[in-house]
Amino acid sequence: MKLKEIGEFGLIERIREIFGKGEGVLAGLGEDVAVVKAGGGCLLLTADLLTEGVHFRSHLISPFQLGWKALVVNLSDIAACGGIPRYFLVSLIVEPEREWESVREIYEGIKAAGDRYGATLVGGDTSRGEALTLSIALLGEGIRDEVILRKGARPGDQIYVSGTLGDAALGLRLLLQGKKKGYLIERHLSPTPRLTLGRELARRHLATAAIDISDGLVQDLSHILKESRVGAKLHLERVPISDECREEAEALGLDPLRLALSGGEDYELLFTVAPGDESQLEEVAGLCRVPITRVGEVTSERELRLFKDGKGISLEISGYDHLKGS
Amino acid sequence: MKLKEIGEFGLIERIREIFGKGEGVLAGLGEDVAVVKAGGGCLLLTADLLTEGVHFRSHLISPFQLGWKALVVNLSDIAACGGIPRYFLVSLIVEPEREWESVREIYEGIKAAGDRYGATLVGGDTSRGEALTLSIALLGEGIRDEVILRKGARPGDQIYVSGTLGDAALGLRLLLQGKKKGYLIERHLSPTPRLTLGRELARRHLATAAIDISDGLVQDLSHILKESRVGAKLHLERVPISDECREEAEALGLDPLRLALSGGEDYELLFTVAPGDESQLEEVAGLCRVPITRVGEVTSERELRLFKDGKGISLEISGYDHLKGS
Repeated sequence: MKLKEIGEFGLIERIREIFGKGEGVLAGLGEDVAVVKAGGGCLLLTADLLTEGVHFRSHLISPFQLGWKALVVNLSDIAACGGIPRYFLVSLIVEPEREWESVREIYEGIKAAGDRYGATLVGGDTSRGEALTLSIALLGEGIRDEVILRKGARPGDQIYVSGTLGDAALGLRLLLQGKKKGYLIERHLSPTPRLTLGRELARRHLATAAIDISDGLVQDLSHILKESRVGAKLHLERVPISDECREEAEALGLDPLRLALSGGEDYELLFTVAPGDESQLEEVAGLCRVPITRVGEVTSERELRLFKDGKGISLEISGYDHLKGS
Repeated sequence: MKLKEIGEFGLIERIREIFGKGEGVLAGLGEDVAVVKAGGGCLLLTADLLTEGVHFRSHLISPFQLGWKALVVNLSDIAACGGIPRYFLVSLIVEPEREWESVREIYEGIKAAGDRYGATLVGGDTSRGEALTLSIALLGEGIRDEVILRKGARPGDQIYVSGTLGDAALGLRLLLQGKKKGYLIERHLSPTPRLTLGRELARRHLATAAIDISDGLVQDLSHILKESRVGAKLHLERVPISDECREEAEALGLDPLRLALSGGEDYELLFTVAPGDESQLEEVAGLCRVPITRVGEVTSERELRLFKDGKGISLEISGYDHLKGS
């Protein structure tokens, strides 16, 4: 069977079957971040790559923004598990014809994100190749009984998201239509990893499960549900959408809700909180200066059901699959 | 200026200038392995990628061998600094048209190397793309005052290599000529990381500096000399060459010495030992079941001089540069 038929998540499943779970590994394949024992604490390991033509197009993103984003997508995984980013490695595939100046700007973008969020470049690799590729591996630190995984959600937990959703997906559409600037485009090109929020959720033992929204709310929620062996109700009227997204989407004849549900790359956090613990969230939101919105609840029936104003509805939603390409 | 003009090592120099050395980093950019403080010990971080058309050609290496080699080139870096490999991440770029079966074999090769040398896969990333690429990041463990770097060689130290050199380079030539099997081809396709040797050298505080030979003896030695701010004399008649390499090279009208000096991918260790400590090496060689040969000595004049049977000679030697392509 071809990879495009089994898809990215089918591939990951098969890799898990080959490898199983190793010794000293608290969480590994199937999570965005691997958690391994180290002394009294634990180490967090994550890797994400961006490759030209799949994750970005060079004429739509500056080299600086590309470097920034390549590190941020990794930082965002550390954020989701409540960890602290420490050290990273950058492996670069680049055309030998490229000017050093543009590569310098890529590394300056990487450095800006590293400096901003406390991560240090310590090594990597370089090779020539046709498709510009940044493959980053990031090492973070966590406290063992604090780390948040995908697999801890329990029936009755409330489901929350940070910030607003759909902005980045719409920003990409605007870029493809020739627009250059604005809030939505900025959200697509220069995402923010929610590290402070992730740390607070972990430190206070507030989140039972978490993930960063890289592939769309529905798809990323389904990862939590699968790993936690639970289902959920999602209340679509509660999904937070920015005014900019709503207005611009409507001007373009697009459904902002659909962008919010299936558009990826917002790098907001999606997390579940045990009933009774919700009251602390307002304080956390204030502290982290990011809105937090309740969008649903975890159920014991293992399916994801969508509701709009209390009524069950059916929507065909597909997140992004990097092997299928849609 | 274009990257092909500044080359791989010029690029690394420039990246070093941008980033400097971070806090808690005992060794970083400029080494194959980054060493960072962690509790009483230290963590070792390394990344190496293999990409189709640059590091391998799919019709000359089986998927299993490719997986094996992709992990081994990383393990070899951990070997050179005397560390213990622990956990790794695999980021894969692959054509969506590829059959799962062949990808399965790649991961089985990775798993075989991981199982053999004690490293566990804990995560990674996957994306579609034209050029099959395996980007691996490996985390290892070291003991702080044992870790061997490139930068510790001192004038008067003796220079040693493990095993024989030139085998892998000649194996590649044979593959390109249509041969399929044999010792030399095996050396190219299925290298061995010298982890036990590296550990013994570290544990006994025997090596003052070390590197694995991935780009050729002369080029890799020059990295040690540069980082240690020293020079060296290399005695060419002492460079260890296998009978297979010598015979096959001569049959093809090639100079086996030149293959040994500039042919990369042998993944043997090149290391320096303080005078007086040489006597322990025989025991180490026996224990690790690998020959160790003295090939030169470190000098205070910062240049590399080549000698053949006691006479200084001049040879144009170039190692491999992954950006220049030669």
